[in-house]
Amino acid sequence: MVKEKNITVALDGTGGDRNRQGGIVKAVEFALTLYPALKLVVFGSMELKEKLEHGRFDRRRITFHQASQCIPQDEKARNVLEGYQHSAMRLAVEAVKNGEADACVSAGGTGPLVALSRHILGTIGSMRPALCARLPAGGFKRYALMLDMGANATSSAQDLHDFALLGTAAAKVLLNNEEPRTAILNIGTEQGKGNALVQETRHLIEKDQNLLSEGFLEANRLFCGDADIIVTDGFTGNVALKAAEGVASIFAHGPFFKRLLAKMSWPEWLIPWQYNGSLLLGVNGVVVKSHANAPEQALAVAMVEAAKAVSSGLYDSLRNDPILENKAR
Amino acid sequence: MVKEKNITVALDGTGGDRNRQGGIVKAVEFALTLYPALKLVVFGSMELKEKLEHGRFDRRRITFHQASQCIPQDEKARNVLEGYQHSAMRLAVEAVKNGEADACVSAGGTGPLVALSRHILGTIGSMRPALCARLPAGGFKRYALMLDMGANATSSAQDLHDFALLGTAAAKVLLNNEEPRTAILNIGTEQGKGNALVQETRHLIEKDQNLLSEGFLEANRLFCGDADIIVTDGFTGNVALKAAEGVASIFAHGPFFKRLLAKMSWPEWLIPWQYNGSLLLGVNGVVVKSHANAPEQALAVAMVEAAKAVSSGLYDSLRNDPILENKAR
Repeated sequence: MVKEKNITVALDGTGGDRNRQGGIVKAVEFALTLYPALKLVVFGSMELKEKLEHGRFDRRRITFHQASQCIPQDEKARNVLEGYQHSAMRLAVEAVKNGEADACVSAGGTGPLVALSRHILGTIGSMRPALCARLPAGGFKRYALMLDMGANATSSAQDLHDFALLGTAAAKVLLNNEEPRTAILNIGTEQGKGNALVQETRHLIEKDQNLLSEGFLEANRLFCGDADIIVTDGFTGNVALKAAEGVASIFAHGPFFKRLLAKMSWPEWLIPWQYNGSLLLGVNGVVVKSHANAPEQALAVAMVEAAKAVSSGLYDSLRNDPILENKAR
Repeated sequence: MVKEKNITVALDGTGGDRNRQGGIVKAVEFALTLYPALKLVVFGSMELKEKLEHGRFDRRRITFHQASQCIPQDEKARNVLEGYQHSAMRLAVEAVKNGEADACVSAGGTGPLVALSRHILGTIGSMRPALCARLPAGGFKRYALMLDMGANATSSAQDLHDFALLGTAAAKVLLNNEEPRTAILNIGTEQGKGNALVQETRHLIEKDQNLLSEGFLEANRLFCGDADIIVTDGFTGNVALKAAEGVASIFAHGPFFKRLLAKMSWPEWLIPWQYNGSLLLGVNGVVVKSHANAPEQALAVAMVEAAKAVSSGLYDSLRNDPILENKAR
């Protein structure tokens, strides 16, 4: 039996809800159980360190570095880059840069994480990085990649075209799909529908021979497997996924009996926490953004997603992709 | 006992799925039962007329006009206005203009319906009309108004500000709320979050003394009652609601037992078809857009919504609203 090579993931132990350090310990326990070849480098407060010392896992699989400075979710990019030199998020990204870790995971603010990742790791060519979510697509082991989920508040049609190229390159390793079909999120499927952004994006995607266009996709078909890659600007992508989460969470807040029924009626392939962890595609390294308010299982899933992305050779595959290479300046 | 004044609603009997004329008959039956003071003027094909003759309702409550021409969902505005003189949708809107009906309902394309309504009825002042949905907001008889749901593919901050004014005026009669709070849909609640459109809109709303600003709202809180009015551009609004619908519809397509459990676990206040029918606010008349693929109950609900809007005096209230009057040129 070939033993899988160890994969080291750096974890920002301060991101997300800071009061939930007990949750982080549980997430660490869960992640180490789910992925036997996983090692972690955790950056966080002394309080977290103490809590981790009571965790039920092999101590040798964890390295701890004290870094209690936490970047506020909505801190401006400029402040993030100039201050917070000792923040857990910054140090976790730097661990990827200097080779201490193969990937990093943070549940902190999207803006700070994207700014630090671009600044410290650099981007692949002239690409704008995009957050890529793996959506369940109508059944077990069927997924679609959706990007951008909010790395950029504003995007041009050229950006969306880049996202399609990034998604197509990523689908080869993440979905084992050599010929993924790309759809553009829109308010209708007919040719003339939507705003100038989606119209121009469709034009760019259809004339690019490296891409297979699936035309437009409406948001009510996000989880139906109509396309392998769904491109959208970060504002719309973020709103669409949060709206979907919002409906799902209504079931989690009803009376006990209804909650139980809801749990039983939920399709197994659509358990929300199974899909936590968006990959920041387009930077020189594997960076995973975990949902800020995700339960501990979800944070564990984000760490496992990061490890799987490393194991799949995602980054090398993107860096050496002939299509993306042509884009690089 | 005071008998309620009859309200006449014109129905486009060709919009939506054309093969479902049996569904239209059921919807008519259901609507006439739900709203005893309702009368209908139906525009449609001879086939629909024959089907209606077998419907179980008082014949005196229905007038039928033959109009079998159907405008395709994605027909361009110019073609809609220049052609289709005898289309059911056009005649239904004209019935409002010439006083034969108090309101009209169509499940046809949003683009054509908005174009015809603006052209035939005209707009209130210089407002851009917006589609306004009534969202369930966390319990029985608690609602929020969300606009625009897709009347405009592109909007400026001035448009979104107008939508806030329209919503505030409409909330007085539709929600019986004299001091409604307005939130802007965004990808975060912090001040600096989002794109230039939402930033500028927030600035305009906060400095307008006629509006109560509730800041930003994230899409996962759409159904939580955090605000009375939620403003967004038509592209984002449409995507958000369709994404929510998409999740809801997953439950309707599982195996029988899971479907049953889902039905039982669904909160009573969130049955989707109870909320069909978006009001086109800002035109001189009451126009309701029904969901194109809605079941027959939903089309009935759209007709009832139209009648209720008329009964509430919505249009007169908007036309005479001092705030909107100041906007009028």
